[in-house]
Amino acid sequence: MKTISLSFIGFGNIGRGVARILMNKKQLFKEKYGIEFRVISITDSSATIWDEEINLEEAIMIKENLGALSGWTNEYEVFDFRPIDVVREVDSDIVIDVTNDPNAHIWHLQALREGRNIVTSNKPPLAFHYWELIHEAGKRGLSYKFEATVMAGTPIITLLQESLKGDSIEKIEGVFNGTTTFILSEMEKGINFEEALRKAQKLGIAERDPSGDINGVDAGYKATILHCVAFHPITFREIKIKGIDEITEKEVQQFLGRKQVIRLIAKVEEGNVSVEPMTIPKSSPLAVYGTSNVAIIKGDLGGEIVLKGAGAGIKETASAVVSDIIRTCLTLKNKT
Amino acid sequence: MKTISLSFIGFGNIGRGVARILMNKKQLFKEKYGIEFRVISITDSSATIWDEEINLEEAIMIKENLGALSGWTNEYEVFDFRPIDVVREVDSDIVIDVTNDPNAHIWHLQALREGRNIVTSNKPPLAFHYWELIHEAGKRGLSYKFEATVMAGTPIITLLQESLKGDSIEKIEGVFNGTTTFILSEMEKGINFEEALRKAQKLGIAERDPSGDINGVDAGYKATILHCVAFHPITFREIKIKGIDEITEKEVQQFLGRKQVIRLIAKVEEGNVSVEPMTIPKSSPLAVYGTSNVAIIKGDLGGEIVLKGAGAGIKETASAVVSDIIRTCLTLKNKT
Repeated sequence: MKTISLSFIGFGNIGRGVARILMNKKQLFKEKYGIEFRVISITDSSATIWDEEINLEEAIMIKENLGALSGWTNEYEVFDFRPIDVVREVDSDIVIDVTNDPNAHIWHLQALREGRNIVTSNKPPLAFHYWELIHEAGKRGLSYKFEATVMAGTPIITLLQESLKGDSIEKIEGVFNGTTTFILSEMEKGINFEEALRKAQKLGIAERDPSGDINGVDAGYKATILHCVAFHPITFREIKIKGIDEITEKEVQQFLGRKQVIRLIAKVEEGNVSVEPMTIPKSSPLAVYGTSNVAIIKGDLGGEIVLKGAGAGIKETASAVVSDIIRTCLTLKNKT
Repeated sequence: MKTISLSFIGFGNIGRGVARILMNKKQLFKEKYGIEFRVISITDSSATIWDEEINLEEAIMIKENLGALSGWTNEYEVFDFRPIDVVREVDSDIVIDVTNDPNAHIWHLQALREGRNIVTSNKPPLAFHYWELIHEAGKRGLSYKFEATVMAGTPIITLLQESLKGDSIEKIEGVFNGTTTFILSEMEKGINFEEALRKAQKLGIAERDPSGDINGVDAGYKATILHCVAFHPITFREIKIKGIDEITEKEVQQFLGRKQVIRLIAKVEEGNVSVEPMTIPKSSPLAVYGTSNVAIIKGDLGGEIVLKGAGAGIKETASAVVSDIIRTCLTLKNKT
């Protein structure tokens, strides 16, 4: 049995989703993998709780009832550590970043320098600093995993990293943003962009500020990460993106009459990444609905592989984070 | 740079397909993985060629022109070794079984006892002796890989082994035999079973003796292997199979009128595996055409993941074998 110490940075929906899985499957992970987890710090935007072992059930209750960990003063010591302080001070085996911090690469790099492995669902560090992060981890024999950043629980990153070793990937095409799919498929029913967006917001599919989805940035981050994994490191600045905000209800209806739909399609080829609305036949695997994501991976030997699954969702995203945590532990186990 | 010695057992279409990839991508694999391959023996049904390094280009020419390696007497020593002799005598790092030998488990086990790693596309050893083989390999710290046995180049085995670590798999459903799909979709066009079968044979999709495909044995082998990977070891004897030979043209047409098609569906749940013809909506991901295979993998956290791709083909199957060879080499490299 190996005990692995974890630091959570971020304790929103995804963070608590991960914590719930670690609690509920504690016994299973012990039996199946010989691993026990000990969460030694949790950081939210208000504070850091740091102790020998934090009670996850209570942490979730505190966060959900009080809204912030800073109020949890009766049982644990509360620190005003920021993430950079956590990775310096807290001696954890794995740092779990489930924030949206666009500058997280700074403390990811620091964590690696301190000898900590990283599992993250946070896209901008990879979309802007892939090479630095992977290089730093590789140099130190550490693990840096990020399955949750693309297609949530659908394991496209692991598939690209672990299989098709003899193939040269020629192209990846896909739909990587569920909000735009929802809006476009609502427009197929005859409502305009603004109405469709409001409906998406009402249902919690789009955020209050939906710009990152609508303008293609979210899909662009994901396409950038896929390029880094399948080909070579690039940054988000090098890719072309175009959003869906100029698409009219009339256009959508027109294409629908020709059995075509518009989707926000990402195309990833070596040295060439784009995200833009495109018309595709209704019969294409790219014609997804709801929050499903899809990728078509074309290799020179294996041909076209279609991978489709949830592209969002708390449980689904947490599934990928937990899978990465366990994979990291299995490497750690083999080392000792 | 690491040099890995290989023994080919079987030098039919798949074996030569693998050899061609190793030749054509020699430089690429050196640069990308730091691996060089040296084929030190090739065995076909006629003989075994064994030397310090065999010229693959010539081996392919000899096999394709003379039909058998036993005629290749001018350059190499020709041995009358059977596979069991090869794994005993030839000191290779990886034994590649691309035969259909139903008793191959005997020499697979011997190869493992001799300290050799195995990569195979051969289904019966796994469908009948999964536990023995994996246990023997595990005990000795050796690798036993078999991506090509299910869905050819579409990496379902690696996906199940390397990702979804936190999920409990609830069910896998899929279409894993292209010949039956071809016959059934031809019957949708209005011809009967016998005519459709003859067409499949004429096009080289069905073999001269198509019984293994038609009666569900081939799909059953694959479903058994998936159960072993996703749940626990069982054998082919424990599963239920029913073929497609009793399906009439009339039935097919009737269902088609209701927007349903018949496909040979494999269902894999813990302790429960079946393969039988079932009606499914034309809109279902299981309604595949041609030689495409598809799997729907349902996990308790990540939800439904659809994986679709080539289920047959020389290049596609060879792609999986080569991917396994490289993955094995990367483990060997880390060990030394």
